[in-house]
Amino acid sequence: MEAADKIAAVEKYMRAVTNKDMNLIRKIYADDATVEDPVGSEAWRGIAGVVEFYQKGFDVGAKLELTGPVRCAGNAAAFPFCCTAGNMKIQVIDVFEFNSAGKVVSMKAYWGPENVTA
Amino acid sequence: MEAADKIAAVEKYMRAVTNKDMNLIRKIYADDATVEDPVGSEAWRGIAGVVEFYQKGFDVGAKLELTGPVRCAGNAAAFPFCCTAGNMKIQVIDVFEFNSAGKVVSMKAYWGPENVTA
Repeated sequence: MEAADKIAAVEKYMRAVTNKDMNLIRKIYADDATVEDPVGSEAWRGIAGVVEFYQKGFDVGAKLELTGPVRCAGNAAAFPFCCTAGNMKIQVIDVFEFNSAGKVVSMKAYWGPENVTA
Repeated sequence: MEAADKIAAVEKYMRAVTNKDMNLIRKIYADDATVEDPVGSEAWRGIAGVVEFYQKGFDVGAKLELTGPVRCAGNAAAFPFCCTAGNMKIQVIDVFEFNSAGKVVSMKAYWGPENVTA
């Protein structure tokens, strides 16, 4: 998988969440994907769990915006972004791992209370 | 491990590399640590391997500077930074995993050719 394709997937992801586009979420993630957000919490497993997770984000009107370049390495991409929901802003770093079909099989979100401002 | 301690470890790490302080590198890393830089390459294993890796960084005069907040989650911290060596700049995201003694047991560095400017 080329870096350009990974970067395009990340940019699609920013739009998918911001525009509440669940069809695009389904295109980005593999059927057997896991989402751990934040890291250390129980993971959402499988596309049904992934959809459930993002529905919660859509319900609070979360908007995502990159705050620096996407870093591509191996089968992964890491990227810093800001998640805005109402007056709350969270500075996050996500790590995507891609499968051989170019779908995200693992998403890990790194953020803690120190990264939240209201 | 408190977030403040993880953030302090990351700030020490920026100084350790920038100041070529191998004693500080040895304090930050566990004896059984691994370093995968960039992700997808063969990992350096054990403190002797870690020291060998950083000696290469010291030899090229690498300087590190955070470019955004440290994100702490679970037993990990992720952080964006710029690595400068001569005229070359690399935009990197590192993920540290800490053991119960507060030492880094795993470092993964996410960056690719797209993140390098000369």
